[in-house]
Amino acid sequence: MSKTIDFYFDFSSPYAYLGSRLIEAVAARHDREVVWHPFMLGVAMQGEKTFPLTQYPLKGDYSRMDFERTARYHKIPFVMPADFPKLTLGASRGFLWIARHDPAQAIAFAKKVFAAYFVSGKDISDIEIVAEIAEETGVDRAAFSAAIQDPEIKAAFKASVEDTVFNRKVFGAPFFIVEGERFWGADRVGQLDEWLTRGGW
Amino acid sequence: MSKTIDFYFDFSSPYAYLGSRLIEAVAARHDREVVWHPFMLGVAMQGEKTFPLTQYPLKGDYSRMDFERTARYHKIPFVMPADFPKLTLGASRGFLWIARHDPAQAIAFAKKVFAAYFVSGKDISDIEIVAEIAEETGVDRAAFSAAIQDPEIKAAFKASVEDTVFNRKVFGAPFFIVEGERFWGADRVGQLDEWLTRGGW
Repeated sequence: MSKTIDFYFDFSSPYAYLGSRLIEAVAARHDREVVWHPFMLGVAMQGEKTFPLTQYPLKGDYSRMDFERTARYHKIPFVMPADFPKLTLGASRGFLWIARHDPAQAIAFAKKVFAAYFVSGKDISDIEIVAEIAEETGVDRAAFSAAIQDPEIKAAFKASVEDTVFNRKVFGAPFFIVEGERFWGADRVGQLDEWLTRGGW
Repeated sequence: MSKTIDFYFDFSSPYAYLGSRLIEAVAARHDREVVWHPFMLGVAMQGEKTFPLTQYPLKGDYSRMDFERTARYHKIPFVMPADFPKLTLGASRGFLWIARHDPAQAIAFAKKVFAAYFVSGKDISDIEIVAEIAEETGVDRAAFSAAIQDPEIKAAFKASVEDTVFNRKVFGAPFFIVEGERFWGADRVGQLDEWLTRGGW
């Protein structure tokens, strides 16, 4: 079994989407498995007293420009959604449920959710749209729709978010943890790559 | 006369210090002159409702770690000052005054101020220490000490900070502007380099 890279993300974060695309090549190069952990960035923001990037007066405009320029730089398809950010509880709970049975299928689902929002501009806060994506990934749609409303799944996801923010101290997205070493931001994937190559510095 | 890279910084910003070290090789590679612009990050933070990085509950600890790890990554000497951040009005006004007569000397002064704080841990909010650095740079110490208390210099620096924040919309440091293209952060120097190589993308 290969070693892992823990990848923490919110489905509504543009940089997490970009990070999800960048980490794959790095993981493959070092024969690492990426373990995907959706969480709610809003919970971290409450404690940090931070806000979605686009809501800052000056940083907001810059960020919109930088999302697109950075995507073009890395040749990653990206169209800034008109309606941003989104609360993506349904997709996140759905991910958790799928991952219990088939982690690889959950990742395939997550990639489609990211692309639906950041390429096709679909409303990924809409649980019907999310259920449709699950179905396209090969998941039983009725079972999926029931699962994301299941109190046990809701509680399990809440506990997972709390673990991410309060125990693992993840305050932004994307966030990567490799053997305790912490890397925040799509712009730290290069350092993470080098860290694995050199075994630290 | 070569084209320029505008570089906006606060003497108290660790990433601005790292950025000041990284931009030099890029500027040399593209035969560009770096034009240094000190400003007060606090003025930008007021409008953005942001805080010094180290004051955030979780991001604070991460940032302290990241300053040092990123410095080591780039092989830049760095020791996190015990007393952080500092209000560096004297050094900034002094820079402005020196630059009127000799921009290259002002940059030499600025590099010494950064190193005094981020390598030697000196208190760069102390105008006697700043005057000593000016003297080491070859500036007349008495004239320097008088200049940083001169109401005309104070007003000129205030106007420069307002121009930086309100007109140029600089909200963080380091901030680089090249022919209107904006790059925020030491971690965007790579993209800036590539932008100059390719003429954009």
